[in-house]
Amino acid sequence: MVESFADQVRSAADRANSLVCVGLDPDLSKFPDSLSHLPPGERIAAFNKSIIEATADLVCCYKPNLAFYAAHGIAGLEALLATRDAVPAGVPVLLDCKVGDIGSTAAAYARAFFDEWDFDGITVNPYLGEDSLAPFLGYEGKGVIIVCKTSNPGGGDFQDLTVGDATLFETVAGRAVEWSAKYPASIGLVVGATWPEQLARVRAIAPDLPILLPGVGAQSGDVAAALRAGLDVRGGGLLVSSSRGIIYASNGPDFAEAARTAAITLRDSINEYRPIL
Amino acid sequence: MVESFADQVRSAADRANSLVCVGLDPDLSKFPDSLSHLPPGERIAAFNKSIIEATADLVCCYKPNLAFYAAHGIAGLEALLATRDAVPAGVPVLLDCKVGDIGSTAAAYARAFFDEWDFDGITVNPYLGEDSLAPFLGYEGKGVIIVCKTSNPGGGDFQDLTVGDATLFETVAGRAVEWSAKYPASIGLVVGATWPEQLARVRAIAPDLPILLPGVGAQSGDVAAALRAGLDVRGGGLLVSSSRGIIYASNGPDFAEAARTAAITLRDSINEYRPIL
Repeated sequence: MVESFADQVRSAADRANSLVCVGLDPDLSKFPDSLSHLPPGERIAAFNKSIIEATADLVCCYKPNLAFYAAHGIAGLEALLATRDAVPAGVPVLLDCKVGDIGSTAAAYARAFFDEWDFDGITVNPYLGEDSLAPFLGYEGKGVIIVCKTSNPGGGDFQDLTVGDATLFETVAGRAVEWSAKYPASIGLVVGATWPEQLARVRAIAPDLPILLPGVGAQSGDVAAALRAGLDVRGGGLLVSSSRGIIYASNGPDFAEAARTAAITLRDSINEYRPIL
Repeated sequence: MVESFADQVRSAADRANSLVCVGLDPDLSKFPDSLSHLPPGERIAAFNKSIIEATADLVCCYKPNLAFYAAHGIAGLEALLATRDAVPAGVPVLLDCKVGDIGSTAAAYARAFFDEWDFDGITVNPYLGEDSLAPFLGYEGKGVIIVCKTSNPGGGDFQDLTVGDATLFETVAGRAVEWSAKYPASIGLVVGATWPEQLARVRAIAPDLPILLPGVGAQSGDVAAALRAGLDVRGGGLLVSSSRGIIYASNGPDFAEAARTAAITLRDSINEYRPIL
């Protein structure tokens, strides 16, 4: 029996008593000088390894975003794989890539991200419909986290449009619930912490799906409002994603320690709003 | 003055008298035995180089899809860059990657695909809204081809939903027209050849935007119906994309010649339906 992505996240969250998901989005301009002797790819890998060692007991998941590695070409992608390998067993790794393409192409992405690169989950874009996601959804237990209502200011341009008696993002959430009963993958949703009211509506539609919650910290989503809106009945079900606020807490030689402190602060501020069960 | 992606495509199309866009989607199981002594990455690069040499005077664009390279890991991505380099000057290369992410992440993708990897255009997914596309749209002349109505059977799951007095895909087409007046990039749309009626509606909304038309050949879209629906008033404006039907026309030692013959056949069958201006 394969442990599902949702179960892996839950186990890690219970062990660390934490809903924190650390976004590993390398930005060389924010790295400490102490790493500047290394070429870009190795610098990214070394930076992430230090961050992971300093925070692995404090998180429920790591989330590298493909873009920040691809921006450094082949060396950047090698650093992505080194980063994946640096995460200890028991902590799932979600590749944030927001892919979506027709079936045969989606199958190639699935081979890349699940088989070749061994990620525990990925984010996907629903715009191309169910058959475009089916190749991912066929992987037993793998996390397939569907972009629903995004944290950016323009996220509503299409997501908030009314279709029938609901918005597009609510329609996507509803379909995700249907798919979670139909496919062997472990389905979740992406909802920005910047939209607590919309998050509450998604949680009502999808009471049991894990929700990846970007947008706290640098994007200034309100943690308390988002938690009230998004926690499931067991006081979990959220992956509260923070990148810049944790990994760039300091750009001095103490960067890893500072990241640890920032992760503890976020973990504790989240836990204030979680019920004691 | 930067030559825009649309102008590059038009120049190549005029020179070759062809609207054919060859999709370079490597599938090792369909490669000729004559290349089987090479490791996967080099095999892909060698295969594509032969296809490009055999067809470069017959096409208006090449379109490698990122997924089929990523599926082979780092070696596959190295083959993607070798493929990009094998295309002669004057023929634009469109990376089919259908990315879409929030602004800072989109900016990293733009650096990757435009600055680092030097592609002339990319495909993008509109679900995250205008500000998610703005980092791409800010690149003068680069092609930003927005997924609108896709060729797959489930493409309508969300794209065909009615929002106000139009479908979602028509709404996307309308926004693309607005953006094309506002941003320096060269904007286009993706519409599957499998939906001629919907293609006609997109062409009515966006008379001047180039339309990438996948779905002829292996996906069995009707070329005649799609051309009637999608040609612009100058008898162009379409990038008729075919991958499997051309690059896997033979898996024998004559694969490159067979690809050339298939490209000529598609070019000529398209030209039958183009007005002589």
